[in-house]
Amino acid sequence: MQADGRKRVVIEGVAPEMDAGHFPVKRTVGDRVRVEADVFGDGHDHVMAWLLYRYVPHGPQNGQAPGPWQQVKMTALGNDRWAGEFAVTELGAYQYTVAGEVDHFETWRSDLEKRIAAGQEIDVDLLNGAKLVEEAASRAGEADAKELRRWAARLKAGGPSTQKSAQEAALDEALLALVERYPDEAKITLYERVLPVRVERERARFSGWYELFPRSAGAIPFAHGTFADVEARLEYVAGLGFDVLYMPPIHPIGRSFRKGKNNAVTAEPGDVGSPWAIGAAEGGHTDILPELGTLKDFQRLRQKAEALGIELALDIAFQCSPDHPWVRRHPLWFKHRADGTIQYAENPPKKYQDIYPLDFESEDWEGLWKALHGVFLYWIEQGVKIFRVDNPHTKAFGFWEWCIGEIQADYPEVIFLAEAFTRPRVMERLAKLGYSQSYTYFTWRNSKEELTEYLTELTQTEVKEYLRPNFWPNTPDILPLSLQTGGLALFQARLVLAATMSSNYGVYGPAYEALEHEPLRPGAEEYLHSEKYEIRSWTWDAKRPIPQLMKKLNAARRAHAALQANEHVVFHETDNPHLIAYSKQTADGGDTVLTVVNLDPYNTQSGWVTLALWKLGMDEDASYEVYDLLSEERYLWHGGRNFVELNPEKIPAHVLSVRKSVRTEKDFDYYR
Amino acid sequence: MQADGRKRVVIEGVAPEMDAGHFPVKRTVGDRVRVEADVFGDGHDHVMAWLLYRYVPHGPQNGQAPGPWQQVKMTALGNDRWAGEFAVTELGAYQYTVAGEVDHFETWRSDLEKRIAAGQEIDVDLLNGAKLVEEAASRAGEADAKELRRWAARLKAGGPSTQKSAQEAALDEALLALVERYPDEAKITLYERVLPVRVERERARFSGWYELFPRSAGAIPFAHGTFADVEARLEYVAGLGFDVLYMPPIHPIGRSFRKGKNNAVTAEPGDVGSPWAIGAAEGGHTDILPELGTLKDFQRLRQKAEALGIELALDIAFQCSPDHPWVRRHPLWFKHRADGTIQYAENPPKKYQDIYPLDFESEDWEGLWKALHGVFLYWIEQGVKIFRVDNPHTKAFGFWEWCIGEIQADYPEVIFLAEAFTRPRVMERLAKLGYSQSYTYFTWRNSKEELTEYLTELTQTEVKEYLRPNFWPNTPDILPLSLQTGGLALFQARLVLAATMSSNYGVYGPAYEALEHEPLRPGAEEYLHSEKYEIRSWTWDAKRPIPQLMKKLNAARRAHAALQANEHVVFHETDNPHLIAYSKQTADGGDTVLTVVNLDPYNTQSGWVTLALWKLGMDEDASYEVYDLLSEERYLWHGGRNFVELNPEKIPAHVLSVRKSVRTEKDFDYYR
Repeated sequence: MQADGRKRVVIEGVAPEMDAGHFPVKRTVGDRVRVEADVFGDGHDHVMAWLLYRYVPHGPQNGQAPGPWQQVKMTALGNDRWAGEFAVTELGAYQYTVAGEVDHFETWRSDLEKRIAAGQEIDVDLLNGAKLVEEAASRAGEADAKELRRWAARLKAGGPSTQKSAQEAALDEALLALVERYPDEAKITLYERVLPVRVERERARFSGWYELFPRSAGAIPFAHGTFADVEARLEYVAGLGFDVLYMPPIHPIGRSFRKGKNNAVTAEPGDVGSPWAIGAAEGGHTDILPELGTLKDFQRLRQKAEALGIELALDIAFQCSPDHPWVRRHPLWFKHRADGTIQYAENPPKKYQDIYPLDFESEDWEGLWKALHGVFLYWIEQGVKIFRVDNPHTKAFGFWEWCIGEIQADYPEVIFLAEAFTRPRVMERLAKLGYSQSYTYFTWRNSKEELTEYLTELTQTEVKEYLRPNFWPNTPDILPLSLQTGGLALFQARLVLAATMSSNYGVYGPAYEALEHEPLRPGAEEYLHSEKYEIRSWTWDAKRPIPQLMKKLNAARRAHAALQANEHVVFHETDNPHLIAYSKQTADGGDTVLTVVNLDPYNTQSGWVTLALWKLGMDEDASYEVYDLLSEERYLWHGGRNFVELNPEKIPAHVLSVRKSVRTEKDFDYYR
Repeated sequence: MQADGRKRVVIEGVAPEMDAGHFPVKRTVGDRVRVEADVFGDGHDHVMAWLLYRYVPHGPQNGQAPGPWQQVKMTALGNDRWAGEFAVTELGAYQYTVAGEVDHFETWRSDLEKRIAAGQEIDVDLLNGAKLVEEAASRAGEADAKELRRWAARLKAGGPSTQKSAQEAALDEALLALVERYPDEAKITLYERVLPVRVERERARFSGWYELFPRSAGAIPFAHGTFADVEARLEYVAGLGFDVLYMPPIHPIGRSFRKGKNNAVTAEPGDVGSPWAIGAAEGGHTDILPELGTLKDFQRLRQKAEALGIELALDIAFQCSPDHPWVRRHPLWFKHRADGTIQYAENPPKKYQDIYPLDFESEDWEGLWKALHGVFLYWIEQGVKIFRVDNPHTKAFGFWEWCIGEIQADYPEVIFLAEAFTRPRVMERLAKLGYSQSYTYFTWRNSKEELTEYLTELTQTEVKEYLRPNFWPNTPDILPLSLQTGGLALFQARLVLAATMSSNYGVYGPAYEALEHEPLRPGAEEYLHSEKYEIRSWTWDAKRPIPQLMKKLNAARRAHAALQANEHVVFHETDNPHLIAYSKQTADGGDTVLTVVNLDPYNTQSGWVTLALWKLGMDEDASYEVYDLLSEERYLWHGGRNFVELNPEKIPAHVLSVRKSVRTEKDFDYYR
């Protein structure tokens, strides 16, 4: 038997709820959490439902006492479904759950209305109601108790002369509100789980990443660049409007089995090696490649970047070159072959002898976990608050859940981007267990159908509660086939798609701006002369078409809240398969951006776009202005159906701010 | 940090899983439970997954130790999804969960194949494999350990002369199977919840209910019938093929505010009252209305019914007439009005003064729960094992969960049918918390679209795991509008639909067979001269059309396993909106029944039925025989598209056994 069988309300189907509450839903400061639940009781009594929530300072791992539970009355949506919402205003963790109870007073009140309508005798009913009011009074504070007893007295006055006053009192909204403030706590049902929310800072939701290799940032062509050279590029990156500058690993690079240019098995003298082959005599994951500069140089770069509104993101790749200090100091952290050598990375028959993976089944797994955690802590102490984690899917899930949990408890401002280009369940799991942002399949989604399906999955299924996409048209590892043949127009189109579909996006900039499109070999998705293996020399010219477009897109993203989240994404019909049209809107409907992209880089494409205006909160016959944030042209559109023509030789996209303030015909009717 | 960070596999998305394992999935003895889960590890290592299950004797409430965990290897479905299944062979409760681990040996073996294919040196790899085999040996029993060490020795022999033998050994399936039997238990991940299964007897899944009022079973017209009279009707009911005989409450009927014929507010002398107004001077819920007979008579009826393969189902209605003994003995179990009187049932402005509802918010709720539980126990002791519970949705959910749980722990053979015609979430909740079967909305689903949508919801969504529908075309409370005007053809059609769509179905027989269709007043769904308020006199003539159809339908249900469950329901396209076509098939595909019904009771309807043969495991060009279980006619059909014509003046339905044994064209090709 349950502790108190008088709890007559049940609560189920609470959403969002990830894996029975094991994982939190994610929000950023200032967001709202909308919660729905099925709340109902037996019989015909009305029920009331509350959403309860509280702030948990700096995550559940910390010993601090959670804040007091707050409550919000939920609203009935029909069919026993209820909804409520609350705002998250602090970094860290929140919790929520749902409570419900039979609302005896409201039930009585509603019945009374029916009795009155049917002309029934209601003397005893009024007394029944007075009893409910008095019960509420017994649970209320002094002032409200007094007030409630005054109401009860009016209900009890009874008799023909006072019945009108009693009736009025009975149906007074103020009385209902007052009584409902004092439910009988013994009979309140609490949902069986308390559900977590992880609240991060705004940049977890809205960020523009620019990736460059510091060693290619130098002013002297092909000389090894330094942090000081990167400093000199900050104005350029800030001018394009990016706010995260991401650098591949900055640590000493191994010499054993070092790869040569174009991933050659053996390096030539002078070859600089891959930054992901981490560790050498000079040190490991908490050390800096001497050629780049010192920790002091790094600090100066970080501070100068911050002054320009740019945060540095470090690349954390948990793997070691054979020369990494851990290899000698912690042999247990690596897998050993039967011949006593350490197991290098493999994807049989391919061998990567310059890389030793870490063994998460090590007997000293605890030592390993602490050391890896320590790497993050070291760089956090150096002021780094954004980490792009390399191949997190090849490290134990349990490690990430613990490590990110520990860090977010102490440093809730730290952001993690998961670089896991792998299977869907694996990518989702990494997001669930703490990654703030995730690389996606966007890089390979090209057609209208593919893009529509993928963005719908990311923004309109449960995935949206925990996985924040970060769209990249390219990376140093990936030169997608489409960019190899599409030319400038496709580079432009893919950039527009990334920047307008996802509030987090990034680009491996220097190669993108240079329209680099030669693959290592036909059919490969790797760059020829990849910066992963050699120093490149780039033109940092902001007047080229791609930097110009980046500037416009990033300005549009900063000016338009609709582009700063992935809320209320609507795809609109076009009658041309090469034209894709979609809009984003803020929750309050105050900002709407409609993007139309010509996916054909070779031909002008035109057609009719039919906007689902009702989904945008607009009348079907509305007249409204659309302002192109790229071309700065304006058009007056009428109704949902409008003609669009996009010439890839000019610019293959419209990014249109939809201005609803234009009067509709209804307004004119009103003034006639 | 988790206890052992070396567990690298994660398990999520386990299905079925009701409310995070709070509620069991339902099966009957002999059924299988198919479980799916996402099981995956980090990196590229292969994983293995097991479905674990065990029998829990007589429910978790009993103190007996659960049986040992059994394990079944799960099969990869792709995209990290795995599936496994087990059979439930005992009444009561089972539990299941999922386990997973990295399969190092299988990973090694698969890598080795690639190395061999690429012509790589594999000496060290063979030694690596030998080490894995030796590790398995260290976990194995003596005999297998010896065997494993022999394998390891072959792998280690190495060198050019023995490498062929070593390679053969390495890739031998027998070695793989043997190694996989000894996983490293320390590294096994167990899913975080153990999930329950409730196993009931076959009749919970497959039953045909016949409802009659014993007081109308008499041989002398309008004289009060007795249990002995019901005895005399058993041959008739058994002859129609039903296996559950359900009687409205058999308890003493209240006299206060007794309702007259046709629900008149005051009874005339001689009016027998409603059996649902339970309790009088003669007793309450554990007593028998003297006019029906004695407990001994009841026992004789029950035994005679059982001898004919019929079980008695009692109607348990937890409400009291003002004359019920509980009213005086347990005033706390009822709600009191402000004037001191007991609150009668109401649906304002309607009043039901002959009924006192029980108050589940009573201070003595524990006493009330025990008394109600005691009512079931009393009748179980009298040999009753099926209960139809009246309006369970007006009693506390917590009570049902406890009461049914207690009873099923001690008497797992007891079946409960929930008579809750109410909102979807409420009906679903009652099913979740233990009801074996549920009345449904079938009674009001008439059109092809309505029936298709509803049966799809019941058989193809998560609902199928816990809610077993029982389809009733009528009840003493409900004469649906459709039956009021549809005539014999509609009575026939609705009977066919109920009997073939749902493996559990029932009928309020005497009125149905008599084609009773006059409502109390126009637009009402209540019977004129309802048996609820008066004794009726029926013709028990099995030669009438409806009894004849019942006989054929029940015979078809007994002969065809496809109709004994709601598995693999497929709707087939028809080009006539009045024709509905659907099939049921057993899990092994061995039995298929296709039903086609003309929903128009007034006109012959014909059209093309296009069978989705591929969903039935048949070739699109198959020739096959369909045998009509109603008309006993046979047809040879070719391919999916076949013509059907149904004349409502003859019989508005085909119930076709699909006999796949006819040779297909492919077979002929084979013999050519």
